[in-house]
Amino acid sequence: MRLSGTVVVDSETVVEAGAVVVEGSEIAAVGPADELADRYPDHEHRAFDVVCPGFVQTHVHSVQSPGRGLADDTDLFEWLEDHILPIEAEMTADELELASTLSYVELLAHGTTCCVDHLTVDHSERAFEAAGDVGIRGVLGKVLMDRNAPEGLHEETNAGLAETRALVERYHRSYDDRIRYAVTPRFTPTCSEACLRGAREIADEYDGVRIHTHASEHESVLDHVTDERGMGDVEWLHEVGLTGEDVVLAHVILTSERERKLLAETGTHVTYCPSSNMKVGAGIAPIADYLDRGINVALGNDGAPANNTLDPLAEMRQATLLQKVAHRNPRTLPAETVFGMATRNGARAAGFDRVGRLEPGWKGDVVGIRTDTSRGVPLHDVYSYLVYAATGSDVVFSMVDGDVVVEEGVVTSVPVREVYRRARAAFEGREWGDGA
Amino acid sequence: MRLSGTVVVDSETVVEAGAVVVEGSEIAAVGPADELADRYPDHEHRAFDVVCPGFVQTHVHSVQSPGRGLADDTDLFEWLEDHILPIEAEMTADELELASTLSYVELLAHGTTCCVDHLTVDHSERAFEAAGDVGIRGVLGKVLMDRNAPEGLHEETNAGLAETRALVERYHRSYDDRIRYAVTPRFTPTCSEACLRGAREIADEYDGVRIHTHASEHESVLDHVTDERGMGDVEWLHEVGLTGEDVVLAHVILTSERERKLLAETGTHVTYCPSSNMKVGAGIAPIADYLDRGINVALGNDGAPANNTLDPLAEMRQATLLQKVAHRNPRTLPAETVFGMATRNGARAAGFDRVGRLEPGWKGDVVGIRTDTSRGVPLHDVYSYLVYAATGSDVVFSMVDGDVVVEEGVVTSVPVREVYRRARAAFEGREWGDGA
Repeated sequence: MRLSGTVVVDSETVVEAGAVVVEGSEIAAVGPADELADRYPDHEHRAFDVVCPGFVQTHVHSVQSPGRGLADDTDLFEWLEDHILPIEAEMTADELELASTLSYVELLAHGTTCCVDHLTVDHSERAFEAAGDVGIRGVLGKVLMDRNAPEGLHEETNAGLAETRALVERYHRSYDDRIRYAVTPRFTPTCSEACLRGAREIADEYDGVRIHTHASEHESVLDHVTDERGMGDVEWLHEVGLTGEDVVLAHVILTSERERKLLAETGTHVTYCPSSNMKVGAGIAPIADYLDRGINVALGNDGAPANNTLDPLAEMRQATLLQKVAHRNPRTLPAETVFGMATRNGARAAGFDRVGRLEPGWKGDVVGIRTDTSRGVPLHDVYSYLVYAATGSDVVFSMVDGDVVVEEGVVTSVPVREVYRRARAAFEGREWGDGA
Repeated sequence: MRLSGTVVVDSETVVEAGAVVVEGSEIAAVGPADELADRYPDHEHRAFDVVCPGFVQTHVHSVQSPGRGLADDTDLFEWLEDHILPIEAEMTADELELASTLSYVELLAHGTTCCVDHLTVDHSERAFEAAGDVGIRGVLGKVLMDRNAPEGLHEETNAGLAETRALVERYHRSYDDRIRYAVTPRFTPTCSEACLRGAREIADEYDGVRIHTHASEHESVLDHVTDERGMGDVEWLHEVGLTGEDVVLAHVILTSERERKLLAETGTHVTYCPSSNMKVGAGIAPIADYLDRGINVALGNDGAPANNTLDPLAEMRQATLLQKVAHRNPRTLPAETVFGMATRNGARAAGFDRVGRLEPGWKGDVVGIRTDTSRGVPLHDVYSYLVYAATGSDVVFSMVDGDVVVEEGVVTSVPVREVYRRARAAFEGREWGDGA
């Protein structure tokens, strides 16, 4: 297939009147549209306003979509304990597959072609199947919680690790290596030392398996780990082996100088979730400082209840606006930098070597975006448009691994109207937990 | 016309399966859909997912649309002096009409049915004509700048005031009282004491004329007025008569205890522009405190270069997220409060007594919003959906003063494709100022 438009190759290079040719699952050529039209005259052709790499989000919770808008304007722990965890504990396997399908549909429809996905304790296999079927690229992991967990989510340490191992064997590098595994301890307050060290052991056994967890999201988390271990959350994670180039930490808001050095030295990846951090009142992550230190920072929407959308373009905008106001400096995180965070930085964190830019031999993960609305007139600079003005509703086309999954803004791999209908029937008006 | 759907009457009342009947320019009835279908069987019927009051934005710059995306990631004064003011100074009358038309199209298409609009020094009459033609409700004003202005924008004090008076005579309460006038000093650094006092005199001469200016937006503004007058910006505005129930102040970020008391005592209205304040790195306005004191706070996108969109739903989301993170408290500014700010509070600030809620006898300013996308599934609470998940691209229908101006998300009162084509031709690649 030949996709033409203003081609945004990466955070530095734009080909005006360009094209991208995709053959099989990979990009075959990138260049001027007329030249590629001559070289590939028989390839099916699609014209878009903008063609760019699919967006990568390295912290989402696909299973939480039933809780979108269920408990806004609520304190974090009340939110988690009274609303979110009961959903995770009570969902049936069928409901979990529906919940994750709904999230993957939303991610793809808004231009996210690859995600790192924090699932839940049970029924995780159904999310892997859903990701495979809907067609997203993903690094998914069942959650480990062996202490301080509500009844339906508590799992013995060895049972959780054994189940993790079984899921790695079954799904890691499945669907033509489009789906991979991330060992996923929830966060330090709910994971014993044995659980955290066990996570590292499994990741070391398999090539390409990631580790994904929350870190230093909130004052209350920091208090917990400081009381218990006498150190910061990132220090404790480092102590038990959960830093390194295969580790993706979400949020990472409250960190000491020593912890920032550890992140940089170990090549640990950070996922910045600005909208979620704002909505739960957690704080402002020191992202400009992390970038200055050479830490790889990617973006994430977090789960639907914390955002309440899964829109990578809205998150790019939020990522820079929040840093600008925090630093009282409009030059902080310019548009090109943010675009890089949402594409190549994300792919690096997720562990895909040939994802996140448009280059021959790289994966055919490409999106098409319209500019023909009032938000796109006039258009002086394509990075400015993508970061500050466009939203996920401007995405009209998505392709993952060379397969078309979104046409005219609608996911084509599953019957979306039917997914919405089933999700409304299953989740609207449903009481979770003790009816809170 | 009879509009049915989930009817959001105001920030407190929702009628599920409701309807709104509009006759002429006013709302005739609000109630259960089946009851109104029986009572008004012959009215044309339109079904939407959500029907709510049109949004009101009390600080926009319609004339600045040519600068959208032209100077992002730039310091405020460089941005203003090298990019924005040259556009205002150099636009021809035809270009200004085109620029304002483009903004009114964007505002209406995204659900804003009423705006308070800060124009520029010259050619303002063309914006009034554009607002009249496109069909938005608005309180517009030509800008007064009688000092510290670049060459093309400087105007003698009396000339500016005389031109203001002439425009009030010509346009205030024009277009069936849909268009009104706001006397508009730019901000204190560019206005002499005589200019500011003259603005108050004109507003006092005419019933319903507003006063609209920027206040305490940025440290540099505060430094200027403190050096010159030995007091804060709001104190100085109060001193020269520019506080009161007819005054709308934009931004109002840096205020003392005394100034906050003045705002509350005088009934002065504040426009909170969170995205703009973030993008220029200005700071975080103490909005929760203003609301606690009973100050009327409305919302505004500011101009396209500072935002870069004119989307009232994105601004609602930003309004609460920024306050939540500033206060480290997710309960700050709940969704219903923000919805009220974007509707009735805005109408109060703009001076329209019967705008901003859906009630018999009130103006027929109504929008229809879709929920049938992934962002709207599941939908537990309509305020949550509107504030946290929906964007202006979900607006499908807008009506102002009983006239339909947006159908299927597209403005119908002017040929929008032609407007976009002309704006691209006029403004893309155009060099302003000395080519900066």
